[in-house]
Amino acid sequence: MSAFVVAVRDGRARTGRLATAHGTIHTPAFMPVGTLGAVKGLGPWQLEQLGAEVMLCNLYHLALRPGVATIAGLGGLHAFTGWSGPLLTDSGGFQVWSLAHLRAVDEDGVTFRSHLDGAPLRFTPEGVAGMQAALGVDIAMVLDECPPAGAPRARLDEAALRTRRWAERARAAWRGPGALFGIVQGGVERELREREAAALAALDFDGYAIGGVSVGEPLADRRAQVEWTAPALPEARPRYLMGVGTPADLLHAVGHGVDLFDCVLPARNGRHGLLYTRTGLVRIRNARHAAEGGPLDPECACPVCRRLSRAFLHHLFRAGEVTAPVLGAMHNLRFFLDFMGDLREAIYSGRLAELAATVASPDPVPDDGATAGTCELAGDNRSTTLGEG
Amino acid sequence: MSAFVVAVRDGRARTGRLATAHGTIHTPAFMPVGTLGAVKGLGPWQLEQLGAEVMLCNLYHLALRPGVATIAGLGGLHAFTGWSGPLLTDSGGFQVWSLAHLRAVDEDGVTFRSHLDGAPLRFTPEGVAGMQAALGVDIAMVLDECPPAGAPRARLDEAALRTRRWAERARAAWRGPGALFGIVQGGVERELREREAAALAALDFDGYAIGGVSVGEPLADRRAQVEWTAPALPEARPRYLMGVGTPADLLHAVGHGVDLFDCVLPARNGRHGLLYTRTGLVRIRNARHAAEGGPLDPECACPVCRRLSRAFLHHLFRAGEVTAPVLGAMHNLRFFLDFMGDLREAIYSGRLAELAATVASPDPVPDDGATAGTCELAGDNRSTTLGEG
Repeated sequence: MSAFVVAVRDGRARTGRLATAHGTIHTPAFMPVGTLGAVKGLGPWQLEQLGAEVMLCNLYHLALRPGVATIAGLGGLHAFTGWSGPLLTDSGGFQVWSLAHLRAVDEDGVTFRSHLDGAPLRFTPEGVAGMQAALGVDIAMVLDECPPAGAPRARLDEAALRTRRWAERARAAWRGPGALFGIVQGGVERELREREAAALAALDFDGYAIGGVSVGEPLADRRAQVEWTAPALPEARPRYLMGVGTPADLLHAVGHGVDLFDCVLPARNGRHGLLYTRTGLVRIRNARHAAEGGPLDPECACPVCRRLSRAFLHHLFRAGEVTAPVLGAMHNLRFFLDFMGDLREAIYSGRLAELAATVASPDPVPDDGATAGTCELAGDNRSTTLGEG
Repeated sequence: MSAFVVAVRDGRARTGRLATAHGTIHTPAFMPVGTLGAVKGLGPWQLEQLGAEVMLCNLYHLALRPGVATIAGLGGLHAFTGWSGPLLTDSGGFQVWSLAHLRAVDEDGVTFRSHLDGAPLRFTPEGVAGMQAALGVDIAMVLDECPPAGAPRARLDEAALRTRRWAERARAAWRGPGALFGIVQGGVERELREREAAALAALDFDGYAIGGVSVGEPLADRRAQVEWTAPALPEARPRYLMGVGTPADLLHAVGHGVDLFDCVLPARNGRHGLLYTRTGLVRIRNARHAAEGGPLDPECACPVCRRLSRAFLHHLFRAGEVTAPVLGAMHNLRFFLDFMGDLREAIYSGRLAELAATVASPDPVPDDGATAGTCELAGDNRSTTLGEG
C-alpha cells in the first residue's frame, strides 16, 4: 500500500507526497528508467546523488533476464538492484505495442517471443501481478493492452475493454506489499478515455495511469488524451502519465493534474549528445562547441556542469569515449529532476503559469536547427526495438 | 618543478611524497590512465572519490584530438579535463612501439601517421617538451624510443643511445612549470640499462622512468629489467615504471624501490568483467555468479562492493548494459588504489615482506581457470591497436 497526500493545488496542478515502504516520493515526480535494474551508465548511488526519488524497471526485460525467480531468490528487486528507494515496475503492456511483431494477445493474456532468443513468455493479469509481488516493488502496474496510434475506434474500444477486464482480474489477484495502479486505455477517443477512467475508479486502485500515449500520434493528440483523462481520474489518488515526455509535455500534464512520469528521453538523448539546458537544447557534437570553455548550463548544479566545459564534452563525444554517454545521461537526468523540483516549487507558491511562460516551445529544436532533433524528441522517446519504457 | 621526499624505507622499498603545484602524490602511487583526458566511463570527481591522486593522459592522443593548441587555449589540461590534481602526460615514445606500423623514426624525431585519418604528426624532443609545457602538466616525460621485445642487442643499444640524446635535447629545451622525467631504455640488456641509468642521472632530471617494459617479453625479463634499472637510478628522485602491471608486478617493483606506476590493466579488465578481489580474480560473466547475493569483495569499500551483489554485476555484464563496464572499471581502479595504500602502510610499518606473503601468485588465474585470463593480464595490458599506455 501507499498513501498519497495532496499538499497544495495551483489550478488543476497539485503537489504532494506519495509515501511507500521504501521512502516518500515528492510529486510531481519524474522516474528515471532502469530497464534492466540500472539506468544505463549509472550506479544507484549516482541516481540518488542526482536527486531521483523513485526508479522504474521493466518487468518484461527482468522476466527475460535474469528472471523473476532469480531476483526473488536474492531478496527482491531492491536488494538486487541496490536501489533502496521506491521502485515501480511496468507490466509488459507497453511491450504489447512496442514488440507487436513478437507477441500474440488473447483474452487470457499475452504470449511474447523473447526478443533475445525467441523463447515464449506468457503474461497474464494474475501472473504479472504475482511477478511484481514477488519482486517486492512499491508500485505495480496492471497488465494492459496498448494499441497502436491510428487504430480505428473499434480496435481502441476492444483494447480498452480488455484492459479493464484484465484490471479487474489483477485487482482481485493482487497480494503484493506495495500499491497497484490501474491503466486507462482508449486512444484518441475522448468518450472511451472518460468511460474507462470512471470504470477503473470504481475498482478503487491505489493510483491510476494514463497509458497508450506517445505511441506515434501527433502532438495535439498526445496532449488531448491527457486533457481528457487526467480530470476524469479520482482526485485523491496519484495519476501517472506513462512514457512521456519532453519538459513541455511534463509541464502540460502537471498543469492538468498529473503526478508521476517516466521516460527514457533524457537518458537516451543524453547518451546521444543531445543535452538539455535552461537556454535550450544543445547538440554537443556540433563544431561550434569545440572551443567553448564555459559549462553546458551555468545554472545547473550537476557535476558535469560544475566541473567540465562544453569543449571537453564535445571532445569526449567526438572521440567516442564511453565517458561521454555516461556524463550526457547524468546531466540530462539532473535537468529533468531539477525541472520537476521547479514545478513543485511553482505549485507551492502559486506560480505555475509564471513558470510556464519561461519554458521553451513544445517541441524545442537543438541549437544547430537540425530537425532530426525534433523527431528524436517527439517520436523516438521510447525504444521500439527493445520495447523499453 | 616538484619536490620528492622519502619518508620511510623498508629494504629497497620506500614511501614518500611527491609535491606538485596541483597537490601531493603519496608514493608508491598508481596513476589511472585517462588516455583522452578522462578514465573511460568516469568523470574526474569519481576518480577523486576512488582515491586517485594523479591522472595520466596520453600526449599522442590529445595532440591528435582535440589538439594541444585547443587545450592550451582553454587554459591547459587541468581546466580542460576538470581534473584538478596532479597530471602526468607521456611523451608519445610508447606509441613508437605500439604504433610501429604508423611511424618513422629518424635522428631528429618521429613522424606518426594518425591512426584516425593518416594525417602526419611530427614529434621531436623539443616539440614534445613544448607541447607538455603548453598543457601545463605537473610531470612531463621526455620523448623516447621504445624498441620491441626480442630486438637484437645492437638495436636495443641504438634505441637507448638515441633516447639519451633526445633526453639531453628535451632537458635543454624544457621550460614547463612542472617536473621533467627522463626515461631509461635498454631492453633486456643489463649493461645497457645500467649505463643509461647513470647517463640520465648525470642530466639531473626531476625523476626517472623505466621504459620499454611490458612490451611482450616473458615475465622473468619483465622483472629483471626492473631489478637492474631501479637500483641504478638516483635514490633522491622518484622512479616510475611505465605501463606496468598486475598487483604482483607492482608489489615486486615497489620492493625494488619504484615509486610510480600507470597501467590501463585495471580499467580495461574491469570493462571486460575481469574483476580483482582480495581472494583472487573473478570473471563475473561466469555462470557460477548468477545467483550470488554477496558483494564482489566484502573487504572493498567501493560503492560497487558496498551496494551491489555479484549476481547483479553478472546480470549487467551478461545483458551488455553500459553500466557494467563503468562499474567494473570503478571497482578495479579502487582495488589498485587501495592496494597501493596497503603497500604504503606496509612500508611505514616495516611489514612489506609480510604483506607480500599474502598476495596472489605472480600471474593469477581467474576463478574459472581459463588461461586466457593469464594472457589478458600479462600481455594485453596496453592497447596495441590504439597505442594507449
